[in-house]
Amino acid sequence: MVQYQASLDHSFGALADPTRRAILLRLGRSDASISELCDGFEMTLTGLKKHVHVLEEAGLVTTQKVGRVRQCRLGPRRLEDVTKWIEQYGTMIEQRFDRLEAFLERTKGTP
Amino acid sequence: MVQYQASLDHSFGALADPTRRAILLRLGRSDASISELCDGFEMTLTGLKKHVHVLEEAGLVTTQKVGRVRQCRLGPRRLEDVTKWIEQYGTMIEQRFDRLEAFLERTKGTP
Repeated sequence: MVQYQASLDHSFGALADPTRRAILLRLGRSDASISELCDGFEMTLTGLKKHVHVLEEAGLVTTQKVGRVRQCRLGPRRLEDVTKWIEQYGTMIEQRFDRLEAFLERTKGTP
Repeated sequence: MVQYQASLDHSFGALADPTRRAILLRLGRSDASISELCDGFEMTLTGLKKHVHVLEEAGLVTTQKVGRVRQCRLGPRRLEDVTKWIEQYGTMIEQRFDRLEAFLERTKGTP
């Protein structure tokens, strides 16, 4: 449970930045080297590397040195925990509205 | 677009903490005063108020002073933007696997 919470902290924290979200969407299309990634962003290589590192720490991106190039790809994690949490939250809200509806139905016509 | 990104930054940032996620799930069940919320968490009132404030800034919780009590409830936002982003990311990953599958299908039997 503690590990699940820590993993969620990392995932949500990693997603709380527009550049990091854009990197994930970019890598969703295809793998890319750090330099290729950098071409798409108005940012220094150092700045971009920091963002990639945060994503790597969260397990959302994997990097591998191939010769002189560092290749980036998605994974090993795929935001399964984040999706699960969002679904759990959504279900809870729905159940609450269902209860509210049932209550209004029961009390209909009650003065 | 900038506003959408800033809103996502706030939402994901607010969710990057186990206490704040627990507060959202607690308020998903029913509205609660700050003191009622505090009963469920091993935390000082001041610490809890700070978390509620972050959720309020992100638009995920609304508070209202009723007499001497501050009532908390969910909203006005309901993580719609977060859900939308997660779905967009999921769709992209699926499309990529579809393309990979199609490529493997096309090259099947090729030496």
